[in-house]
Amino acid sequence: MKYAIGIDIGGTNTVLGLVDNQGVILGRDTMLTKDESPSQDDYFKRLFHKVSELTESHPGTKPMGIGIGAPNGNHYSGMILDPPNLDLGNVHVPTIAMEYTRLSVVLTNDANAAALGEKMFGRARNMDDFVLITLGTGLGSGVFTNGQLLVGHGGFAGEMGHIIIDPKGRECSCGKRGCLEMYASAKGITETVIDFQKQFPDDPLLNTLIYGASENGQLGHIDGRVLDTAFDENNETAHNIYNYTAEKLGQGLAQAATLLEPEAFIFYGGIAKAGNRMLDGAKKAMNDNLMSFQQEKIELLLSGLPAGDAGLLGAASLVFNSQ
Amino acid sequence: MKYAIGIDIGGTNTVLGLVDNQGVILGRDTMLTKDESPSQDDYFKRLFHKVSELTESHPGTKPMGIGIGAPNGNHYSGMILDPPNLDLGNVHVPTIAMEYTRLSVVLTNDANAAALGEKMFGRARNMDDFVLITLGTGLGSGVFTNGQLLVGHGGFAGEMGHIIIDPKGRECSCGKRGCLEMYASAKGITETVIDFQKQFPDDPLLNTLIYGASENGQLGHIDGRVLDTAFDENNETAHNIYNYTAEKLGQGLAQAATLLEPEAFIFYGGIAKAGNRMLDGAKKAMNDNLMSFQQEKIELLLSGLPAGDAGLLGAASLVFNSQ
Repeated sequence: MKYAIGIDIGGTNTVLGLVDNQGVILGRDTMLTKDESPSQDDYFKRLFHKVSELTESHPGTKPMGIGIGAPNGNHYSGMILDPPNLDLGNVHVPTIAMEYTRLSVVLTNDANAAALGEKMFGRARNMDDFVLITLGTGLGSGVFTNGQLLVGHGGFAGEMGHIIIDPKGRECSCGKRGCLEMYASAKGITETVIDFQKQFPDDPLLNTLIYGASENGQLGHIDGRVLDTAFDENNETAHNIYNYTAEKLGQGLAQAATLLEPEAFIFYGGIAKAGNRMLDGAKKAMNDNLMSFQQEKIELLLSGLPAGDAGLLGAASLVFNSQ
Repeated sequence: MKYAIGIDIGGTNTVLGLVDNQGVILGRDTMLTKDESPSQDDYFKRLFHKVSELTESHPGTKPMGIGIGAPNGNHYSGMILDPPNLDLGNVHVPTIAMEYTRLSVVLTNDANAAALGEKMFGRARNMDDFVLITLGTGLGSGVFTNGQLLVGHGGFAGEMGHIIIDPKGRECSCGKRGCLEMYASAKGITETVIDFQKQFPDDPLLNTLIYGASENGQLGHIDGRVLDTAFDENNETAHNIYNYTAEKLGQGLAQAATLLEPEAFIFYGGIAKAGNRMLDGAKKAMNDNLMSFQQEKIELLLSGLPAGDAGLLGAASLVFNSQ
């Protein structure tokens, strides 16, 4: 049996685990990605302290290395490039790790890690061509082609959240307009709710979603549980919100499928919990936007791994695969 | 030394060659894809007769097999699915080939064959991630990821001509709207000239392009040489046509690059002769439509092989690669 440490760096929490090469998580720990003193040095000091604790509490299972999945993590360079929502700045992870550990460190981005986890231990075990989509604050993707992770020439492939589905659409923080992420993600659904509320200012659900999400006068993301409950109670507005989101998501899936023709798109992350409330409509919209000979062949699936595990397992798989 | 027969089935001509595994074409022949009796049976009878002649005229070089690149050729199934502009209908090539030859037959689509040729013997020899784009009547693409041809789960990947760049744009024969092919191809440029002529009905170049292309009252494709000459003489309309086409092509390249992050896009086919008249503008538009960290890294290149050879060499490579 082989062992590795997997680390999944998220916007809110960082999860780490000691994993064997059968995909069993022998021990795990969690910490806040941002605490009160959110400097880069402090973050990695806390993180590698947790790694040591985890390793020491399992003396018979020496890890071969550490695999990390992080937003904007570059597979080739080992750099995390100033990810949005985090305060890490630019950091070369193998260099900073050398201060704290003798274990080798391998890095990739968070969506690639989740795709690796799904390929090694989840629903994609027998798939050579699939796309893992992380639906959370934003929309990320990890792509497998011919049984291998597609990282691209410079390590920046798989940016499916920034496929343009409407050139005249919503402004995206990346500088472009109409990116898929601006519709099909927590951020996107929030924009949709605000747009709808401008048209229907008296709609009770829209007002609950908007004002319930307001913290200190700052509008955050809307509460997906409130939206899901309303959908399940056949609230028309909730159905309209998910139908609109599903339509846009399906258009984006079709763009990717036209090029990649995967066996399946697999959904993972907070918003993926909406499940078939969104995926049925997305599947229809995808097929409507494909050429006839590509239609009705691609599955939309939910991750087969417990919530959060794909990223952790995939990060650990980086180590097993690189040695 | 190994030998194979490569066949490139085009809309007008079918080209065949006896090729060695260093990419040398020892002998070649050409025939019309459609002649007076354009039945499927007749076509393959004529084709395999040419194959026999070619083989017999080079007695010391027994081919290992036959590789074929064809529009709508499916890598996995060996089927050619009723390609537009051809009268072949649906045909299972290995089955029909058995009537005429004992050599094994491998099939892929024309753009994949050209990509293989470019990878084995052309400008992509040292590239693991690139996209070959055929610019002719339509726009096709063959994609390499991680050093391998991307064929997709069902053999239908790489349909870059049908990426949507304007959801409210021109109607495409595939049933969708705003497909890249409807702008960046001979078909697309013809549409652009017609659109421009509606706005500027007295423009001499537009009228020459439209009425020069009219045969028997039927409007065909406009003459690229007339357009290129006008461009080179600094005709403003010609510049506007290529700038418009380049802008749309660049948008499509950016969509593909956002997902695939190739090292280069390599252009091949009749319209690729326009060369830098179009590619400079397309490169700028591509970078304008990419996220900052993906910008300025992807090259746009013209095929490094003599006109028409990439398809032939790639079709032959199918045989070398499959054995």
